[in-house]
Amino acid sequence: MIQTINLKEKLTHVTEFWHPGIVGELNDSYLKVAKLKGEFIWHHHDTEDELFMVLKGRLVIQLREGDVTINEGEFAIIPHGVEHKPVAEEETHVLLMEPKSTRNTGTENNERTVEPDWL
Amino acid sequence: MIQTINLKEKLTHVTEFWHPGIVGELNDSYLKVAKLKGEFIWHHHDTEDELFMVLKGRLVIQLREGDVTINEGEFAIIPHGVEHKPVAEEETHVLLMEPKSTRNTGTENNERTVEPDWL
Repeated sequence: MIQTINLKEKLTHVTEFWHPGIVGELNDSYLKVAKLKGEFIWHHHDTEDELFMVLKGRLVIQLREGDVTINEGEFAIIPHGVEHKPVAEEETHVLLMEPKSTRNTGTENNERTVEPDWL
Repeated sequence: MIQTINLKEKLTHVTEFWHPGIVGELNDSYLKVAKLKGEFIWHHHDTEDELFMVLKGRLVIQLREGDVTINEGEFAIIPHGVEHKPVAEEETHVLLMEPKSTRNTGTENNERTVEPDWL
């Protein structure tokens, strides 16, 4: 049976900042939700474009060319190859959409790298 | 420069029910917004999974196995091959995500078939 997924309900199961959880899959991509607070790291994805949609709060994505600010109800798409660093001053909830192959830290593999689990 | 897209603002440019407009592209998929009211037609997509996220209102997706009701803040994914018929009793605003190859009427080609334009 096809399920209906409530984004706010799923977010109640997220307990760790910067650790996305999978909430859906389609066409070789995952939909994920995450809670963000503080600074992430500079990284890029070689082949995957990445969607950031802000459900609550505000996300700044630092780019080498300048900052992009995503407010609640807005999204931005970071094309593959573009270096970016997400920063959330306050607790921010996002929906992510990206190919299943996407690693959260892109081409970097370090202590911020996590494997997403299904929520 | 990477743009921030506001979903509500984009929806103000949608003037016709059941005529999705493109608001973003990533990884060979389009993000679209649409205003729905009334009944669509039974159809399926041979190869494309389709995401329906309700931004306002309520969408019922009739399936051969029963109905799925998607409320505001919720989404459902209709896997390829699954026959479905979207129905919105009241005016409903949705975000769609599907491969660029997806036709709104699936394998059907009739008077309800439309080409999405960029908003």
